[in-house]
Amino acid sequence: MSKLTDLPKRILIGRALRSDKLGETLLPKRIALPVFASDPLSSVAYAPGEVLLVLSIAGVSAYHFSPWIAVAVVVLMFTVVASYRQNVHAYPSGGGDYEVANTNLGPRAGLTVASALLVDYVLTVAVSISSGVENLGSAVPFVVENKVLCAVAIIILLTLMNLRGVKESGKLFAIPTYVFVAGVFVMIAWGAFKGIVLDDTMKAPTADFEIKAEQQGLAGFALVFLLLRAFSSGCAALTGVEAISNGVPAFRKPKSKNAATTLLFMGGLAVTMFCGIIGLAMATDVKMAETPAHDLLRNGTPVGDDYVQNPVISQVAAAVFGDGTFFFVVLAAATALVLFLAANTAYNGFPLLGSILAQDRYLPRQLHTRGDRLAFSNGIVLLAGAAILLVWVYGADSTKLIQLYIVGVFVSFTLSQTGMVRHWNRHLRTEKDPAKRRHMIRSRAINTFGAFFTGLVLVVVLATKFTHGAWVALLGMVIFYGTMTAIRKHYDRVAEEIAAAEERPDDYVRPSRVHSIVLVSKIHKPTLRALAYAKLMRSDKLEAVSINVDPAETKALKEEWERRGINVPLKILDSPYREITRPVIEYVKGLRRESPRDVVSVIIPEYVVGHWYEHLLHNQSALRLKGRLLFTPGVMVTSVPYQLESSEVAKKRARKRQDWNAPGSVRRGPVDQRAKEPSGKG
Amino acid sequence: MSKLTDLPKRILIGRALRSDKLGETLLPKRIALPVFASDPLSSVAYAPGEVLLVLSIAGVSAYHFSPWIAVAVVVLMFTVVASYRQNVHAYPSGGGDYEVANTNLGPRAGLTVASALLVDYVLTVAVSISSGVENLGSAVPFVVENKVLCAVAIIILLTLMNLRGVKESGKLFAIPTYVFVAGVFVMIAWGAFKGIVLDDTMKAPTADFEIKAEQQGLAGFALVFLLLRAFSSGCAALTGVEAISNGVPAFRKPKSKNAATTLLFMGGLAVTMFCGIIGLAMATDVKMAETPAHDLLRNGTPVGDDYVQNPVISQVAAAVFGDGTFFFVVLAAATALVLFLAANTAYNGFPLLGSILAQDRYLPRQLHTRGDRLAFSNGIVLLAGAAILLVWVYGADSTKLIQLYIVGVFVSFTLSQTGMVRHWNRHLRTEKDPAKRRHMIRSRAINTFGAFFTGLVLVVVLATKFTHGAWVALLGMVIFYGTMTAIRKHYDRVAEEIAAAEERPDDYVRPSRVHSIVLVSKIHKPTLRALAYAKLMRSDKLEAVSINVDPAETKALKEEWERRGINVPLKILDSPYREITRPVIEYVKGLRRESPRDVVSVIIPEYVVGHWYEHLLHNQSALRLKGRLLFTPGVMVTSVPYQLESSEVAKKRARKRQDWNAPGSVRRGPVDQRAKEPSGKG
Repeated sequence: MSKLTDLPKRILIGRALRSDKLGETLLPKRIALPVFASDPLSSVAYAPGEVLLVLSIAGVSAYHFSPWIAVAVVVLMFTVVASYRQNVHAYPSGGGDYEVANTNLGPRAGLTVASALLVDYVLTVAVSISSGVENLGSAVPFVVENKVLCAVAIIILLTLMNLRGVKESGKLFAIPTYVFVAGVFVMIAWGAFKGIVLDDTMKAPTADFEIKAEQQGLAGFALVFLLLRAFSSGCAALTGVEAISNGVPAFRKPKSKNAATTLLFMGGLAVTMFCGIIGLAMATDVKMAETPAHDLLRNGTPVGDDYVQNPVISQVAAAVFGDGTFFFVVLAAATALVLFLAANTAYNGFPLLGSILAQDRYLPRQLHTRGDRLAFSNGIVLLAGAAILLVWVYGADSTKLIQLYIVGVFVSFTLSQTGMVRHWNRHLRTEKDPAKRRHMIRSRAINTFGAFFTGLVLVVVLATKFTHGAWVALLGMVIFYGTMTAIRKHYDRVAEEIAAAEERPDDYVRPSRVHSIVLVSKIHKPTLRALAYAKLMRSDKLEAVSINVDPAETKALKEEWERRGINVPLKILDSPYREITRPVIEYVKGLRRESPRDVVSVIIPEYVVGHWYEHLLHNQSALRLKGRLLFTPGVMVTSVPYQLESSEVAKKRARKRQDWNAPGSVRRGPVDQRAKEPSGKG
Repeated sequence: MSKLTDLPKRILIGRALRSDKLGETLLPKRIALPVFASDPLSSVAYAPGEVLLVLSIAGVSAYHFSPWIAVAVVVLMFTVVASYRQNVHAYPSGGGDYEVANTNLGPRAGLTVASALLVDYVLTVAVSISSGVENLGSAVPFVVENKVLCAVAIIILLTLMNLRGVKESGKLFAIPTYVFVAGVFVMIAWGAFKGIVLDDTMKAPTADFEIKAEQQGLAGFALVFLLLRAFSSGCAALTGVEAISNGVPAFRKPKSKNAATTLLFMGGLAVTMFCGIIGLAMATDVKMAETPAHDLLRNGTPVGDDYVQNPVISQVAAAVFGDGTFFFVVLAAATALVLFLAANTAYNGFPLLGSILAQDRYLPRQLHTRGDRLAFSNGIVLLAGAAILLVWVYGADSTKLIQLYIVGVFVSFTLSQTGMVRHWNRHLRTEKDPAKRRHMIRSRAINTFGAFFTGLVLVVVLATKFTHGAWVALLGMVIFYGTMTAIRKHYDRVAEEIAAAEERPDDYVRPSRVHSIVLVSKIHKPTLRALAYAKLMRSDKLEAVSINVDPAETKALKEEWERRGINVPLKILDSPYREITRPVIEYVKGLRRESPRDVVSVIIPEYVVGHWYEHLLHNQSALRLKGRLLFTPGVMVTSVPYQLESSEVAKKRARKRQDWNAPGSVRRGPVDQRAKEPSGKG
């Protein structure tokens, strides 16, 4: 094979290789953990603080309830982890909450989960970035002084990175996540050692502050309500747990087992860190208030509007390591970084969910191609826009944003677990093997408990947070739900309209002949090519048509036509307004009126150019004509392209674009392994 | 003929009539005058004030030079009118300055004139609207207090009206213009009567003010320079005189003679009004200053920033009729209205000039269709945007904007008159008839004087106004010139690239066979129609191609294909990334590699929808595929449209759009009479 013909092939093979390469990058557990856990683990950066913050309403004495709330969160965490371990086994193809709910509970439940997840992705970005900015701000004051600005800047940065198509690697996730986890564990261990063994009294920066209780001496129902609200806030620690259930195909074999194990690890790490931080906060006398300006007192007077309330994790780090020390700064940076990574997971998840929804025709169909750059771009820009709006409206205040956050998570938890119960019921109906049946019954019990517990939490969250902002999240869900229903309805209506009759299509006159016309303005290579191609098509009648826009030019065209002896008749159409579209449309309509069973084939020579501004200079009339011709029945429109030299630029650009990597491919695993039909194995 | 077949014909004829209708609306002189004269006549609303304003720099004593400046303006006006009367006779087809310069002085001069005119149109809008707002403001204070806001609002209103396509009638122009002219004449007459016969002392509102001369006791060169500057400002009265030379075809026969007569009338009216207003201003002691806040003194102290300096015409009206009287308000309203009409003429001229330039390939080719809605829209939006920018930057201050205005006018005057001299020289070389020769020699003398005088004024304007803002106008001209040259170069390069070889096109392999592929996703009516059409085309090979995006769907498609017994082979292409474009492109490239002389015809069934949002839901993948396919050599792409029910909406909309009237058609006359070749008659 010569070198010349080798080149195109190499380009082709170079590209063909890519799909295999993806198959090789399956994740070992030690990499899968950070890839999937940055979202749930990072939430320990804000969840403990939210618990204290709510409790502070009843005064500092209420802080003593915090261990109990931590216990409730731990129980919930293990319930959810146990439940999703069942999902992972039942849907090794990566059945996310949407697919589980859709398959087992029907399209409405599926669409509800999808709406909840879409809202959730937006909030993941808003909350994680805001919290990341707050954590970074505990080390770099400038950041927290320009909170909204910094948060928006980071969202834009992430957006641009994702639009360009970041090449992901597991290591990118692994390093900051492990640094963060290690940092928190060192902090907990060192704090415990200092406190218990050295009997050192560590004091948080806010240890000497007092809290003015907004509601003094709460008791009975009011107290229970407050505790439930604090618990709801603590549940923020559970966000992102479900991510692994989407990513089973990305694991090494045995996939389901490895995924389940990773899930367990993640749960263990999360609760240990959560409880450790709450414990340290109690030991170092951290004080948090919902409205620190009024309710946090320094020497008996409110701290005022200038006071910046640092996150619990950074206050605890200041107490254990000392404010501004090397360890303190490293932990703050790692925390911020993990939170930004958590936000990044939403950038991967949002367009992916969009493509699944598009497959089910809830979103524009073109979005369903996997890894399609434009589809991803649209999704990413929508996500970023919504997140920026929220960050801007809520002043990048993570406390306010968290009020919106947890609703969506628990809607999808609850529906997914309910779906799993149905799943097991269905399989139990046909399964005979007693060992497998036992297994299924156990799984069903776990999922039932999970559904019950998460449903209960959902009710609690709705009751305690509705007026605090949860209504915004619900409104967002309703908007997504409504839009997607409308799109589906449109597609269904069109599908009905275009459905082919079962036997033969009798609803339009069968075409009998083709009358081809080639549009000609001048005689040049594009025209000659179009004429040559048109001749090849052997239509029943072929003629060239030119619009008389300028009599002198038309005369010259006619003369050249004859001089060259082009053996296609040339027809001149008059155009009193020097325009092209109308005379052609009317000529075509006239042909159709004369012989209604003829099909008119309009052949247009078209320039292919490379730069966007060249588009303004070429083809505009042709494009408009095409648009109008398509409305005329019995017409087909053919473009015969002529590639100008400058089109090479665009070709290269298009080739470069094809090498684009859809973000999030590491989390998703190879494509072949994701069949649409879920496997029924327990 | 049955009623059913009658309907489409009536629609057709209904539309066909329109071009005749236009032919009937030729203008009698009494209507042509206001149609063409709103621009030059309205300039007497600001030109006299500008003269006084400049003179005030040397103190109130310099006002005594104003009659001499008026005389200079009158002489110039008659020179220009006499010159353009020659143009009108020589170019009865409506040779505007661009065509005259282009034909006689070559493309560079033509392009210079075109750039000057384009800048001028923008400034006509900016100056006329600003001055209109100032005149309206003398009666309605709110307007002048929110000058920029009102000016921008009126520009936007005019823009929307022109985008919608106003149905013009001569009367629309006639009424306000005649009211304005009559009002000014009544004012001059009544003022003269009161002053001379009744010996009444009329006092302008500013009669008792004093002027602090910025430069006391100017003499010698400095004084001459100031007088020249005042004269330059007064030349603003000449803007728009050239408009008639564009509009000869709109006149009734004898066209040239009627146009020349109208031109003379217009000149006469303009100078009478100009001189009358200057005279009244002197008689009523109007005081104007360039920076009134500092230089205008009331009882010895500057009037301060709050002072609003009303236009001379309104100060004079206040003196003659009394401030706030009925006549005063009517005149202010008529003045403002005529100024807005003057601005409107730019909305007609700008896109028209654009279409002529597009014909010469200085602007994107699609703009050259006359009365094309999109071309007009683009031109109108560009014009309005530039005018709004100027109004905003210069605070809608007509005095500041006028500094920019006159350069362009005199560039095109000078080049047009120089071109006319060449025109006569050329014709004199061949003309034998002594009577005609005499006529031509006379015309040449007039045009020579015109060229010399306007050239002199251009030098004066440039010298006196360059630093005051004329550089902005020059910069604008350079930008237009550069852009248009670049566009022309691009078109020339492309024309060279695509030029067909004189004998036969040997530069590409002659195609031998057509391999047609029909893209199929599902079996529905659009697909069946595309298959039926494809079969009619009798290509050498025909196959249907489907992309395997979802194995289950592909399987179903295959089964249905067989069940229905569709006698076209179905080829399935795999798509590991669930995308459509790449597999098709690679398949097509493969076919071309196998048999390079084959042409591949890709047939795509396309939905035609009616609402913009439906476009988001359909055809996107097809559109992108098409875009990519066009880069592949040896491919033709055919759309087989399937009109969904909703497409009826778009069809109706398109039909409605066709009935759109390009603004300015009244001024332009019927199209058939505008041949491209200028007539040589003297």
